[in-house]
Amino acid sequence: MHYPEPISKLMDSFMKLPGIGPKTAGRLAFFVLSMKEDTVLDFAKALVDAKRNLQFCSVCGHITDIDPCYICQDQSRDRTTICVVQDPKDVIAMEKMRDYRGLYHVLQGAISPMDGIGPEDINVPSLLTRLQEDEVEELILATNPTIEGEATAMYISRLVRPSGITTTRIAHGLPVGGDLEYADEVTLSRALEGRREL
Amino acid sequence: MHYPEPISKLMDSFMKLPGIGPKTAGRLAFFVLSMKEDTVLDFAKALVDAKRNLQFCSVCGHITDIDPCYICQDQSRDRTTICVVQDPKDVIAMEKMRDYRGLYHVLQGAISPMDGIGPEDINVPSLLTRLQEDEVEELILATNPTIEGEATAMYISRLVRPSGITTTRIAHGLPVGGDLEYADEVTLSRALEGRREL
Repeated sequence: MHYPEPISKLMDSFMKLPGIGPKTAGRLAFFVLSMKEDTVLDFAKALVDAKRNLQFCSVCGHITDIDPCYICQDQSRDRTTICVVQDPKDVIAMEKMRDYRGLYHVLQGAISPMDGIGPEDINVPSLLTRLQEDEVEELILATNPTIEGEATAMYISRLVRPSGITTTRIAHGLPVGGDLEYADEVTLSRALEGRREL
Repeated sequence: MHYPEPISKLMDSFMKLPGIGPKTAGRLAFFVLSMKEDTVLDFAKALVDAKRNLQFCSVCGHITDIDPCYICQDQSRDRTTICVVQDPKDVIAMEKMRDYRGLYHVLQGAISPMDGIGPEDINVPSLLTRLQEDEVEELILATNPTIEGEATAMYISRLVRPSGITTTRIAHGLPVGGDLEYADEVTLSRALEGRREL
């Protein structure tokens, strides 16, 4: 035991976070000691508040402190379009873009038979209920461009097709600012496949 | 405002820590949401405890939860030797080595006229008091090998010399496992200067 107990306990807590090993944990713990007491108390409160006051929106599954979430409540948004994403962080990425004015549906994961995750384990049933009740015209499938994400998009698209709602998938291709030379074969093949007339 | 308030507050708190920018803060904040409530409460408690229950040892200036600290209290340690370091983290580095059985004195900084830090602003006066009272025979100056650290070591050494206590400075040279090719000139010159007969 080299560290006084309060420090080693704080280090243990920091080390539970992703990407933080013993060295960084030590540096952060000592930094906390040098912070003002008020700032540390705010930090502690923020941790507890974030854990206790947040929940998943009962409509779209996005993480929120009010239910329904501020996006579902916003009457100025286009209620005929739903963008399906895997994760609350994806909603935030989409919102940062400021181009999309429709609603969201957060699946909280993707179908992955290898990990035993089926459509019922993620928010697919609630999506179907929503599609029956609401005046949705287009479902944009924005799951990740991974095997699981693709499979999930494919599954939902087949499920929804009979209802007559248009399902679209976001485009795959070269990232803007990227370099053709460094693009992997699959991305390049998708970029070629998705080419458009100018 | 893309994030619900409890998340953005938690992100702000994380961003006050060194080396954590908005992206990492977001990742950590979302990770906290996925942690068990007990773990988050422990984390919050560890933060507050570390800030509130730690103090500087009234004898050596090391950070501690009991006063005097566990090193100063340990009667099995060699009380004739004091190792002078700049920072509580240096004590921990020394203790990890397990080779040193003497006491410590933590300066909480180094003399730096450029930043207006003089000997009275760091724990030099308390060191002198200690030297008068205790049965110290050797003072090991283990301040950092920087301009400020060297100046501090030099200053303390001159101050202590009349008292007849031996003052020594830890060796400078090539780090073990290092490469001569990549050593800087000053280190190499110090390594040559400090050469010893085999």
